Amino acid sequence: MKSYRKELWYCASQRRQLINITPQLTECLRESGIREGLLLCNAMHITASVFINDDEGGLHQDFEQWLEQLAPEKPYSRYRHNSYEDNADAHLKRTIMGREVVIAVTEGKLDFGPWEQVFYGEFDGMRKKRVLVKIIGA
Amino acid sequence: MKSYRKELWYCASQRRQLINITPQLTECLRESGIREGLLLCNAMHITASVFINDDEGGLHQDFEQWLEQLAPEKPYSRYRHNSYEDNADAHLKRTIMGREVVIAVTEGKLDFGPWEQVFYGEFDGMRKKRVLVKIIGA
Amino acid sequence: MKSYRKELWYCASQRRQLINITPQLTECLRESGIREGLLLCNAMHITASVFINDDEGGLHQDFEQWLEQLAPEKPYSRYRHNSYEDNADAHLKRTIMGREVVIAVTEGKLDFGPWEQVFYGEFDGMRKKRVLVKIIGA
Repeated sequence: MKSYRKELWYCASQRRQLINITPQLTECLRESGIREGLLLCNAMHITASVFINDDEGGLHQDFEQWLEQLAPEKPYSRYRHNSYEDNADAHLKRTIMGREVVIAVTEGKLDFGPWEQVFYGEFDGMRKKRVLVKIIGA
Repeated sequence: MKSYRKELWYCASQRRQLINITPQLTECLRESGIREGLLLCNAMHITASVFINDDEGGLHQDFEQWLEQLAPEKPYSRYRHNSYEDNADAHLKRTIMGREVVIAVTEGKLDFGPWEQVFYGEFDGMRKKRVLVKIIGA
Repeated sequence: MKSYRKELWYCASQRRQLINITPQLTECLRESGIREGLLLCNAMHITASVFINDDEGGLHQDFEQWLEQLAPEKPYSRYRHNSYEDNADAHLKRTIMGREVVIAVTEGKLDFGPWEQVFYGEFDGMRKKRVLVKIIGA
């Protein structure tokens, strides 16, 4: 069994931002030399997500509006977590969007359906944060 | 390390439908000959889910009503994604329900708790769509 | 390829409770002797979750209040599932929080970011329930 590990660093310029990381995952898989297996990709921070959806700008605006309805950023005082922090909403938004994805690796490729793209979802940005890529297989 | 891959096709007769796919996963595992490992099952489409819950009709009606409250289908104009599409709600519903499940394989069986059943959750149906099954192990 | 399996039992004293299970997962990994691979940890019950977030009491109160807004426990009659049961809300809360986590194993350690802690999320407690730990790797 082979294994591969890499950290990918991102610094979102806004508090909330969706970044397509599919090209970096493709490059990780190439580097790994793994042909058959599983790729795990997870946010290493608990106010960020890794998820799979469509790379379509309108949908990304819908996500922003929808997450703000389900878990509003403000007023900060609505959350107990915000005594020394202001990011309770980011913990909740990340919960909706998910921490991780597991992707099949087949014949050396990410085994995707027609529109699947992987995103780093930042909900408390403007600082450097990490995504972990781990691949196991043969 | 052994690996196995299969695509399962479904054509839901309604826009939204929950289909119990546990028997097909059991058959995939048998075909694979894998005794110890992990099984990944994911929707290959971004308006559908694979998730684990109870096979109980009342609960499935509760899911339908609840998802419609959290991410209503209509009016279509409430979503930016719906300029050429009408399925923005399906992207959001699938986000709540999840893209994938990872199931332990132990002694050649799906290692489930007492009530765990795997469902394909269709939120934009009436056309053929795919689920991916990937198993790795020994 | 090596594999390891263990069931962890919990009996929450309240209907809803979050229990930090990171120490038990660390012990499972040590027992397994696996140095590189993937660890799957999932609730074996469909009214409970395993998820990763912060071990901070204020945030846990925020989760409680937020989940009660998104999927209220009462009135029980609001859910079809509750004809013989009273736990439909627990099925929905678990859906938001997630069934499982997959964690990278690197150099014999759980490969976590700075604040990642694993929780058992009980939403229908006051009885013994199980979590499954499966590790595969080398």
